[in-house]
Amino acid sequence: MKVVNVPSNGREKFKKNWKFCVGTGRLGLALQKEYLDHLKLVQEKIGFRYIRGHGLLSDDVGIYREVEIDGEMKPFYNFTYIDRIVDSYLALNIRPFIEFGFMPKALASGDQTVFYWKGNVTPPKDYNKWRDLIVAVVSHFIERYGIEEVRTWLFEVWNEPNLVNFWKDANKQEYFKLYEVTARAVKSVDPHLQVGGPAICGGSDEWITDFLHFCAERRVPVDFVSRHAYTSKAPHKKTFEYYYQELELEPPEDMLEQFKTVRALIRQSPFPHLPLHITEYNTSYSPINPVHDTALNAAYIARILSEGGDYVDSFSYWTFSDVFEEMDVPKALFHGGFGLVALHSIPKPTFHAFTFFNALGDELLYRDGEMIVTRRKDGSIAAVLWNLVMEKGEGLTKEVQLVIPVSFSAVFIKRQIVNEQYGNAWRVWKQMGRPRFPSRQAVETLPSAQPHVMTEQRRATDGVIHLSIVLSKNEVTLIEIEQVRDETSTYVGLDDGEITSYSS
Amino acid sequence: MKVVNVPSNGREKFKKNWKFCVGTGRLGLALQKEYLDHLKLVQEKIGFRYIRGHGLLSDDVGIYREVEIDGEMKPFYNFTYIDRIVDSYLALNIRPFIEFGFMPKALASGDQTVFYWKGNVTPPKDYNKWRDLIVAVVSHFIERYGIEEVRTWLFEVWNEPNLVNFWKDANKQEYFKLYEVTARAVKSVDPHLQVGGPAICGGSDEWITDFLHFCAERRVPVDFVSRHAYTSKAPHKKTFEYYYQELELEPPEDMLEQFKTVRALIRQSPFPHLPLHITEYNTSYSPINPVHDTALNAAYIARILSEGGDYVDSFSYWTFSDVFEEMDVPKALFHGGFGLVALHSIPKPTFHAFTFFNALGDELLYRDGEMIVTRRKDGSIAAVLWNLVMEKGEGLTKEVQLVIPVSFSAVFIKRQIVNEQYGNAWRVWKQMGRPRFPSRQAVETLPSAQPHVMTEQRRATDGVIHLSIVLSKNEVTLIEIEQVRDETSTYVGLDDGEITSYSS
Amino acid sequence: MKVVNVPSNGREKFKKNWKFCVGTGRLGLALQKEYLDHLKLVQEKIGFRYIRGHGLLSDDVGIYREVEIDGEMKPFYNFTYIDRIVDSYLALNIRPFIEFGFMPKALASGDQTVFYWKGNVTPPKDYNKWRDLIVAVVSHFIERYGIEEVRTWLFEVWNEPNLVNFWKDANKQEYFKLYEVTARAVKSVDPHLQVGGPAICGGSDEWITDFLHFCAERRVPVDFVSRHAYTSKAPHKKTFEYYYQELELEPPEDMLEQFKTVRALIRQSPFPHLPLHITEYNTSYSPINPVHDTALNAAYIARILSEGGDYVDSFSYWTFSDVFEEMDVPKALFHGGFGLVALHSIPKPTFHAFTFFNALGDELLYRDGEMIVTRRKDGSIAAVLWNLVMEKGEGLTKEVQLVIPVSFSAVFIKRQIVNEQYGNAWRVWKQMGRPRFPSRQAVETLPSAQPHVMTEQRRATDGVIHLSIVLSKNEVTLIEIEQVRDETSTYVGLDDGEITSYSS
Amino acid sequence: MKVVNVPSNGREKFKKNWKFCVGTGRLGLALQKEYLDHLKLVQEKIGFRYIRGHGLLSDDVGIYREVEIDGEMKPFYNFTYIDRIVDSYLALNIRPFIEFGFMPKALASGDQTVFYWKGNVTPPKDYNKWRDLIVAVVSHFIERYGIEEVRTWLFEVWNEPNLVNFWKDANKQEYFKLYEVTARAVKSVDPHLQVGGPAICGGSDEWITDFLHFCAERRVPVDFVSRHAYTSKAPHKKTFEYYYQELELEPPEDMLEQFKTVRALIRQSPFPHLPLHITEYNTSYSPINPVHDTALNAAYIARILSEGGDYVDSFSYWTFSDVFEEMDVPKALFHGGFGLVALHSIPKPTFHAFTFFNALGDELLYRDGEMIVTRRKDGSIAAVLWNLVMEKGEGLTKEVQLVIPVSFSAVFIKRQIVNEQYGNAWRVWKQMGRPRFPSRQAVETLPSAQPHVMTEQRRATDGVIHLSIVLSKNEVTLIEIEQVRDETSTYVGLDDGEITSYSS
Repeated sequence: MKVVNVPSNGREKFKKNWKFCVGTGRLGLALQKEYLDHLKLVQEKIGFRYIRGHGLLSDDVGIYREVEIDGEMKPFYNFTYIDRIVDSYLALNIRPFIEFGFMPKALASGDQTVFYWKGNVTPPKDYNKWRDLIVAVVSHFIERYGIEEVRTWLFEVWNEPNLVNFWKDANKQEYFKLYEVTARAVKSVDPHLQVGGPAICGGSDEWITDFLHFCAERRVPVDFVSRHAYTSKAPHKKTFEYYYQELELEPPEDMLEQFKTVRALIRQSPFPHLPLHITEYNTSYSPINPVHDTALNAAYIARILSEGGDYVDSFSYWTFSDVFEEMDVPKALFHGGFGLVALHSIPKPTFHAFTFFNALGDELLYRDGEMIVTRRKDGSIAAVLWNLVMEKGEGLTKEVQLVIPVSFSAVFIKRQIVNEQYGNAWRVWKQMGRPRFPSRQAVETLPSAQPHVMTEQRRATDGVIHLSIVLSKNEVTLIEIEQVRDETSTYVGLDDGEITSYSS
Repeated sequence: MKVVNVPSNGREKFKKNWKFCVGTGRLGLALQKEYLDHLKLVQEKIGFRYIRGHGLLSDDVGIYREVEIDGEMKPFYNFTYIDRIVDSYLALNIRPFIEFGFMPKALASGDQTVFYWKGNVTPPKDYNKWRDLIVAVVSHFIERYGIEEVRTWLFEVWNEPNLVNFWKDANKQEYFKLYEVTARAVKSVDPHLQVGGPAICGGSDEWITDFLHFCAERRVPVDFVSRHAYTSKAPHKKTFEYYYQELELEPPEDMLEQFKTVRALIRQSPFPHLPLHITEYNTSYSPINPVHDTALNAAYIARILSEGGDYVDSFSYWTFSDVFEEMDVPKALFHGGFGLVALHSIPKPTFHAFTFFNALGDELLYRDGEMIVTRRKDGSIAAVLWNLVMEKGEGLTKEVQLVIPVSFSAVFIKRQIVNEQYGNAWRVWKQMGRPRFPSRQAVETLPSAQPHVMTEQRRATDGVIHLSIVLSKNEVTLIEIEQVRDETSTYVGLDDGEITSYSS
Repeated sequence: MKVVNVPSNGREKFKKNWKFCVGTGRLGLALQKEYLDHLKLVQEKIGFRYIRGHGLLSDDVGIYREVEIDGEMKPFYNFTYIDRIVDSYLALNIRPFIEFGFMPKALASGDQTVFYWKGNVTPPKDYNKWRDLIVAVVSHFIERYGIEEVRTWLFEVWNEPNLVNFWKDANKQEYFKLYEVTARAVKSVDPHLQVGGPAICGGSDEWITDFLHFCAERRVPVDFVSRHAYTSKAPHKKTFEYYYQELELEPPEDMLEQFKTVRALIRQSPFPHLPLHITEYNTSYSPINPVHDTALNAAYIARILSEGGDYVDSFSYWTFSDVFEEMDVPKALFHGGFGLVALHSIPKPTFHAFTFFNALGDELLYRDGEMIVTRRKDGSIAAVLWNLVMEKGEGLTKEVQLVIPVSFSAVFIKRQIVNEQYGNAWRVWKQMGRPRFPSRQAVETLPSAQPHVMTEQRRATDGVIHLSIVLSKNEVTLIEIEQVRDETSTYVGLDDGEITSYSS
Repeated sequence: MKVVNVPSNGREKFKKNWKFCVGTGRLGLALQKEYLDHLKLVQEKIGFRYIRGHGLLSDDVGIYREVEIDGEMKPFYNFTYIDRIVDSYLALNIRPFIEFGFMPKALASGDQTVFYWKGNVTPPKDYNKWRDLIVAVVSHFIERYGIEEVRTWLFEVWNEPNLVNFWKDANKQEYFKLYEVTARAVKSVDPHLQVGGPAICGGSDEWITDFLHFCAERRVPVDFVSRHAYTSKAPHKKTFEYYYQELELEPPEDMLEQFKTVRALIRQSPFPHLPLHITEYNTSYSPINPVHDTALNAAYIARILSEGGDYVDSFSYWTFSDVFEEMDVPKALFHGGFGLVALHSIPKPTFHAFTFFNALGDELLYRDGEMIVTRRKDGSIAAVLWNLVMEKGEGLTKEVQLVIPVSFSAVFIKRQIVNEQYGNAWRVWKQMGRPRFPSRQAVETLPSAQPHVMTEQRRATDGVIHLSIVLSKNEVTLIEIEQVRDETSTYVGLDDGEITSYSS
């Protein structure tokens, strides 16, 4: 059994870069009530600072139209929906991490689209009109929300242009052109606005280097680098509603390696100090892979939340909600969606893992590959431990002994558990017979799949507390240790033994 | 181990008379926000039909004043506060079970008071003015809420006049006089209004008989009989903030016997068919006896909820909330108050027991002294089991095997547990060091002492489900069994074994 | 000046058929938060019983898909979105008046679509699959909401099949076929469900007769007849965002004539007693005609609300909200949309007119073409008067004197006014410079365009009240007259003249 | 007619000291829901920073008790209620301006009380126990809310000790003793806490001087001076429910003189720079004087809000709500209470006047005795004008012409009016027959007595706007002038004249 002696003081700060941003389905979905209900839940319990998703310029949000006036087609910018969307975000205390894309039909050079909702992925047929569009959108944001506000936002150009399904022919030079026009357009409105790219997914990291050299050579503005990271393997089996990838995910270390690799490329580039934002990450990149609904996913992500902030300035979990339409309208309550929150506002295990990390303090006392121990401002201790098990089979528990120095004589310990049994709505749903469109009664029962809570009082011995913790397979556990100020002696004459059946 | 074969069909209805009414601290407290927050919680999760408490006519509610006009003292009826109170009740979908009392100072014949809040317990010094007061109050209710509404209310005359601390000298003849004047006053406003008494506590049941004969002889209106029931023994030890009674409570059967005894007295009276309302009951009659905060209390009350409705038309748990002031302002979060809900909206074990009974169906399939099994309208089964242990010591678990016939091939079983460990905020509070005035952080943790939830899917064998249930000491458990309509086969190609670490 | 002597008693009931139903934009919009905010406002202030709109079966709601299983395309019914929509409706206390349409792409025989949102208007390519779809949808409703609930709903087949843009070639025989298959499918699920048609717009009333004869001859089930009614004239001028029709609307009598005409056709048909539902009506049939935003529209509709219920069983204002997308995303706050409520939850004059009618009582005391006077259950009088002026120009006021018999000696009179000046957010918006996407500050000011409220106390003379009412151009006014129970004399010694600057 | 040429730029800041603090009824009332509903309304529409009232240490809040332990009476500090109260305040974004008083019964040296609610106004019988009480209370506040928070609070010692009904014999030396003990106790907990006095009412300003000399001589801590100000004259007529004072109030200038007088006394004292807080002010000092319900009161207070901040650091309107009990439970909806808000959350005219001042900007452009004109941060102009008329009679209007320089070519002007006719719920209530306990229907009508709103668009001529404003008797008017950014030209082809009955 592993024994960990937690130091009395931390030498590092625990960087909460994991809270910086979260992903969302296409922005048009942000008009929906259920979407906003989920976001409200996420903001109340976790509280991200930014939100990023596709589709700002796609036709359903309606910003770009061309209308005939005096026989000529002229641009018409319609902000009815995007105002509503951004108003909703700000009201929920989250700010847009703007992604410019995809192409409005009236401005597209081709017909190629991506997703059920048909995002057009071709270059603009007229770069001047594109530039005008960017200027119009950014200017409108400033007019409505004020320059102070909009300077805190980030603007990213396109999504995964290194993939043929997201950018026609994955044409790198064309992307660089798009980037240049867009970045210059943004800066022309206000030079303090922050713009970046290339928003690629893994597998073509030469784009990072090329992109930064391109910017350097042509003196194109660039304020940050962005990239995505997933760790699932190749496709293995598809049904009309599920997408299974090769059995084993890459281990979490693989994702952390991706973070480090890109950071290293930036360090060697003409802009060695640029911030690095991982604007998407998750285990699988498929919105219909059931792994997202599992306790394993929570235990996997725990490791990323614990360490990722050491390597990147932000990493944005893709996505906060199963209100999502890339592969058609969800066909069942649980369908392998990316969301932290399933339909009907039901938290998944990974949601709980995020709330656990949200309870951690800023002072990092101890960290290894399976736990993180911190101290909070009020002096209490908060730790998250996890037991990621990527092999099949029962059992596979792990035991850890924590030796924690405390300055209090007595402590109140609260432990919360998410694992296969607890905080696992997916499991309860399977017990119910996997109802696709659950009855209203079932919808009331499912959120009761909350983390298991255990509390106790413990006295310190020689200034330390010994905690023996058994973690079941794929468990994520939060432990909070607070000082007890015992007032029992003020109840003069108190005697629980005077109560029927109780002892003193 | 006990084996119970639950029949397929019930021959009786489970009477939900336990939901008819609940007790409250003095009505003046109903102006308070915390009181109304607790009542809202209780109504959402339980949903009583009526609420009864003292102090309608006490000076803090302010109804009766005498003012000098042209040198003469004249009655002035002020409905400012009582309108606000009754408006609040109706808005929370609960109706007043009016108790006329105590005596307004301006109308009192003496100075004797009861409680920290000084309810005057002396007869009126002028019965005509009392009658006018009753007429004014009842008439105002009708003017404001309509005759249809007020006819659904009940009007009870005074509280525990058989005790010297609630009625001067416990003078029976004086009470009968008060009753007669009051009952006739009520009926003079509308003959369909319902009035009753004598609202006595246990120990003087000859009052019941005498009261009914009095009514018969003088043709005094009487629509129901009311009485209280507690099962705690004599005082044993008092401190400045706790009141301990002799160690053992009488068993629950004692309370049920009290119910039956009064029913028998009514049957033998001139009004053999009058309804019987137990307008107060609980284990201890002291608002500072810690028994009320315990899991034992929940297990004890479970038996009463299960059977009480067979003997009486209603029984009103005293009280819904620890917002209560009979023994001064509460001196600590947990202080032995009567409430189902502790301060800061924290549910006690007994609250959870009430919500469990609220989940039961109307069709009574099986019942004994430690369980009740019902069927709900939608065909599902709901059962409550309890393990009341009045002796001290550890262990003391109980095991039961239920054999339940079901017409479904597979069932979803949800079990919820309240016991010493779960759903027991009192225990967590003790672990925290019994903070009198808990910090805002502590107040957030305490409500997480929720019932423990366990779910599973089970297949029926030969049309029955076998459930082995182990009940820990003073546990109350709710079991709900619903049909599973298994949709798994519609997910073509489904294979959980394709998910990392999971099996098919 | 006109003098109206209102009779003391009414001989008729004022039929509130105008509250039976209201129209909505495509059902997919019911997923949106702003849509639901508007519906909540409408239900709180008006309270319709049913809601009807297009697009139940269109692809965005997602109900019908075909998926490949074992090499074969099979139907897949997805109720994820429609459950959410109907749940929302019922939570707002409004029920669906189901319109079956338009055609799912996978089931369509052609490509013809209608509207910005591309509703497919071609017949099914496979009537068996269509029938199966209807059965699946109706069965699912019953499973989720219960048979009692769904029997209160109404099911209408398609929308305006007599127009070529809503039904391929406006082919009547093809519609009858669709109707027959659909109606039989509905009844096959439960014979008590209510189904009807032909949902035509005006101009082809021979469809009504033909439809009913068709049903009679083939013994096709039909529970009601439905038709639409608009009174705007031919197109006159179009811009890219406005649609102007010939200057003068037909007068309101024209719409009432349409109601009567259809009723007469039904009377002469094989089903003379069938209910008649006007499932859409408004002045203009264009969603971008500014008339909908005006006070004139309110004064116009007032006449319809007052009398329409005498001729038809319901008439459903098209529509409750400007959250609507038939002609693209709204291009400005006010854009001539059908809604009672403009974007940002801003009530239009017609909304206020509906709330005025909602204040009327059931007892009809007097009615003519410019006013309606009723008595409410509590004895108070409520009247709505309007001054519809269809000519241009200033002034054009109207004066009326009402002589109202009252049994009270004093009355409290409250008058509320909507006209060009008051309750007219469109006017304030124009004063603001017609901001397309109004700032958050402007959005706060606009709803303050509330009806003007005037109150007074008046004493009756010889049992009557004389009210002289001047109505400005296009004013709609609500007058409520309640008994005063004067308590002034109970304030002994009261003298307002003792207050600085006030008189006794 | 007066013509005012408003300057283009302000040379002063408009000090919003009127928002610093507001008065409240006894703190025990802060437990009540209606009280908190009113406070919520006030905070949403006005937003005071502090709240001050009596009764912190009175027995109903329950802080101080003595209990018998081992035969000895010991202090017991109970924070159950005060925690709830302060939690509520902070949740509504308002902080306590603590007033230490009155005397707990167990600590009182005598029986003398004040008010219906019997505040004990005698010195402590044991100054050591008093000191311990102060230390305990302040320490508890710090423990619960943190030292940062509590350092922003203010602590005032007692209330109006210069009156015999508030302090036994109005004994100045005894008060100084109480002050010294209390101030030293507060500072012993933390030297940065702010403490002050002497909280006197007008009429004995020598107390101010004596108090400051006393502090100087004995080096007693003092951080601010406090005093009250009312302008009503002597009692004139009393009934059992109304209190009329001599007809004319002193003019508002009298109150401003009181402010200046105390400021001058401080300037001449040993602590010339101490802040001065007027911890109570209003027209009449009686809670049952109808003047408080009138439009006159609003016009009177307007002058004070406009100028008071030039002379004092804060002035605290007594009180925010009619939830108040000094003269018994309110006997009618309108009863002459101090509140900005009447019972049932009904705003009074003075409430509206406060909201008007809340709309003013920081840049003071112009001010005289009947108006104030400001510029707001966004460049818009906001002005409040009033027409205080203290003589009886009709008419008495006032006309003003404002010449306002603007840099915009067109402006949107919004004017809101409170006067005898508008925003005057008292008047509507009188029309209803002064119902003491209004029906639920009446309660819905009364809040519709909102300020009258008028809007228009106006074009500037030669860079100025000319506004002719007629103010009716006792009117208070808010005028807001904003730039119009006219978008009309973007609606290509727009022609309102194409709408029936409208002109282009």
